[in-house]
Amino acid sequence: MTKVGIAAYGITPFTKDDQKIESVLFKSAKNLFENNPKINKKDIDAVLVSTNNNSKYLSPILSEMLGMQPKIAHSIESLCNSGTNSIVSAYSYIASGLADVVLVTGAERYDSPGQILEWDDSRGEFKHPIFWASIFSKSYKREFSISDEQLALVSVKNHKQAKENPNALSSQIFTIQDVMNSKKLTDDLKVLDCSRPCTGSASIILTSEEMTKKITDTPIWITGIGQKTTSAGFTKNTSFSSMESTRQAGHTALKMANHDTKNIDVAEIHDAFSVCEPMALESLGFSKSGQGISMIQELYETNDFKINPRGGLIGAGHPLGATGIAQTIEITQQLQSNAGNRQVDSAKIGLVHNMSAAATSSTVLVLEK
Amino acid sequence: MTKVGIAAYGITPFTKDDQKIESVLFKSAKNLFENNPKINKKDIDAVLVSTNNNSKYLSPILSEMLGMQPKIAHSIESLCNSGTNSIVSAYSYIASGLADVVLVTGAERYDSPGQILEWDDSRGEFKHPIFWASIFSKSYKREFSISDEQLALVSVKNHKQAKENPNALSSQIFTIQDVMNSKKLTDDLKVLDCSRPCTGSASIILTSEEMTKKITDTPIWITGIGQKTTSAGFTKNTSFSSMESTRQAGHTALKMANHDTKNIDVAEIHDAFSVCEPMALESLGFSKSGQGISMIQELYETNDFKINPRGGLIGAGHPLGATGIAQTIEITQQLQSNAGNRQVDSAKIGLVHNMSAAATSSTVLVLEK
Repeated sequence: MTKVGIAAYGITPFTKDDQKIESVLFKSAKNLFENNPKINKKDIDAVLVSTNNNSKYLSPILSEMLGMQPKIAHSIESLCNSGTNSIVSAYSYIASGLADVVLVTGAERYDSPGQILEWDDSRGEFKHPIFWASIFSKSYKREFSISDEQLALVSVKNHKQAKENPNALSSQIFTIQDVMNSKKLTDDLKVLDCSRPCTGSASIILTSEEMTKKITDTPIWITGIGQKTTSAGFTKNTSFSSMESTRQAGHTALKMANHDTKNIDVAEIHDAFSVCEPMALESLGFSKSGQGISMIQELYETNDFKINPRGGLIGAGHPLGATGIAQTIEITQQLQSNAGNRQVDSAKIGLVHNMSAAATSSTVLVLEK
Repeated sequence: MTKVGIAAYGITPFTKDDQKIESVLFKSAKNLFENNPKINKKDIDAVLVSTNNNSKYLSPILSEMLGMQPKIAHSIESLCNSGTNSIVSAYSYIASGLADVVLVTGAERYDSPGQILEWDDSRGEFKHPIFWASIFSKSYKREFSISDEQLALVSVKNHKQAKENPNALSSQIFTIQDVMNSKKLTDDLKVLDCSRPCTGSASIILTSEEMTKKITDTPIWITGIGQKTTSAGFTKNTSFSSMESTRQAGHTALKMANHDTKNIDVAEIHDAFSVCEPMALESLGFSKSGQGISMIQELYETNDFKINPRGGLIGAGHPLGATGIAQTIEITQQLQSNAGNRQVDSAKIGLVHNMSAAATSSTVLVLEK
């Protein structure tokens, strides 16, 4: 089977701008083609659009705006991990031989309908994600004797790292006290514990082995893929202190790549809320249960950008359909030693963790030089 | 590469019922599992939902309702050919080795938001599909000296055939005069020239070669796939009397299957409006330009169900996200000699034609015993 590589990417700053979804989509794809003049648009076999936006037929629209006539064109939605679902779909089109070059473009507006979980009747009136995040926080703090201040460090670290990311929504530095003093949303969540919805777009081109080498001198390969859906309603989770879908997706991806978590040099972790980062690190095997915060503390104190170098969702912002693609672009830049002030030394193997809806589904990708 | 087969299907009657999209989705999947007790739900690697509905996260919701925990789960949208886009995606997951068993479920409500083309600003106020269909009808009639009465025969034939389809929205027989006397929508379209939106669901399971043979004694194989997107706005079409995306998709699919149109025993054609059937037949090579109506006339007079045996979209109804899957199920039943009064004699090779938005994109599948 052909290897599948990442040949090119494009991204826009994440903002609160009020733009039409078509314009948002177009901007990162335009950025991609401008930065990669070697790519012939006629070679694009498929255009996959990742979004929660309600507009229809966005992939043919984007294709027409770009002057392209692909074979395959459709939109993909899976809430917050739409982006990596689209990347895995692109992978399968290439690995199956149906396509050689696939453009994946993710985009969202700040007012994305994917933010309010209308579909989960088990929540009653508690449809906003802050309610599951509160339960996770309360459960995690109680089970592992973690304080609010310790969780706040996730936000402090990720905002610090976002300051080195020119596309991040936030460029502010915060202290633990700033997080603690920020607006209280629930008993267990302050506003700075939360990622913020925003307007943003990210595009990536996946290619067959032959096409990858034609387009780029610094190819990055997708060597591991794991996905798992455990349920749709978070009340079905077997634990509120760990992420079962993440554990299974991570296991599958690392096994496929023939690696262990300890081989991973740099990782993007889906920190939709501060508690998600230590929970995901533990479920992926980066640290033992209850010790994710200790790991984060050490990384912060040593100025090590290994986890969420671009600032995570909390620092960079969370345009739902673009997030998984932006994460994958960050790891690509890291492995290409092209991440500027965010660069993690000698990064050779990277991991992307992208999830939806209280970790009821997760995608994990392993990327290598 | 593994062969990809169709191992099972389930379908509901197409109606005007007001049901929640989750319930609509569930019904055809339930029907599928009830009729195929050999399938172990634990073996389902992926659940792909095909719909234009605005609800999010429908694939994990459907999975949870069915008691399943798939690896891959997301929704796919491409207006009226969402169904075959989802089938091709399932094919690629299997052919790439990422999955062995994929459930594809398409569903729509009668009030689907995919019916009004809000996205096509080139239409001005003319956002309903009847406007492009009117232009196609006027253009086709003028170019090939075809009368309204001749186009009306498409509706007469397909309603006659739908009467033998227990799941069809319509069970009425109409004469050419009935079509001509039905409510006039535009200068070139009467209401009986149009397919009708409806509530309906269709599910299909695609499988690797090994799993196909484990589940069914009458496997049907997907041997040809062709897809093409020429634009998003129909005003970019190079002709209003033929379908370029259909021509290219058909060519690719038949080439992949190593067949010619003359080998096709039975076909589902996307007759969103009466004029679409002869245009698609011509663009696919079933007849010469301008002679599609003559072919339809001959089939009608000889009671030959070769084209649109289940009654097409005009007779069976058009629940957008379910249509391409329902078409594929019909061809599967035909090739399995399991189509009741609709059966086409000795059908061994079948074709599915599914398109969106004035044929700006098309999918063609070739299926074989």
